[in-house]
Amino acid sequence: MKTPTIPLVSALSLTAVCNALGDPVRMKIAHCLARSGEKNCSAFEVDHISKSTLSHHIKILREAGLIQPRIEGKQHFYSLRKDDLNQRFPGLVELILSASEE
Amino acid sequence: MKTPTIPLVSALSLTAVCNALGDPVRMKIAHCLARSGEKNCSAFEVDHISKSTLSHHIKILREAGLIQPRIEGKQHFYSLRKDDLNQRFPGLVELILSASEE
Repeated sequence: MKTPTIPLVSALSLTAVCNALGDPVRMKIAHCLARSGEKNCSAFEVDHISKSTLSHHIKILREAGLIQPRIEGKQHFYSLRKDDLNQRFPGLVELILSASEE
Repeated sequence: MKTPTIPLVSALSLTAVCNALGDPVRMKIAHCLARSGEKNCSAFEVDHISKSTLSHHIKILREAGLIQPRIEGKQHFYSLRKDDLNQRFPGLVELILSASEE
């Protein structure tokens, strides 16, 4: 399976990033990855959502440039693009980490 | 005219703030206010949108806790809640300021 593309750091837009994070499920996924590093999508700590809904949220996070995929066999792993985000939007990863109490 | 209410600092949610900023017009208004302080809504540097659309965007920014209104006669002035945002989401105002090149 071909690994989906992700936007270049220079193409990241704060509006698109905020739009992606402006949903409770996606904020939870981003927070989970910010805290724990790479994870299989089955371990995202989001309950009661269908596989297709989860795929939709992952696609929005990926296209906004927040997460990157890694495919290993039939497994999909995701991680937050911390270095890229720190370079383009300093302070954003810390803000995502602070979103825990919401 | 009664001044519309704004949420308490303790009630601000990063998800709601991101949702409000995840729109190009609203990001532009927030950036404009972050740069310049209080402004009348006619000076928001957003072109080609109707008065009712602008009111809608202002309402979303206000309800998310990003801006506060001040009414003087028939004039409505708005400012970014910089102190409150710095207290609740350190680094966010700087991120909004950095959004200029989008």
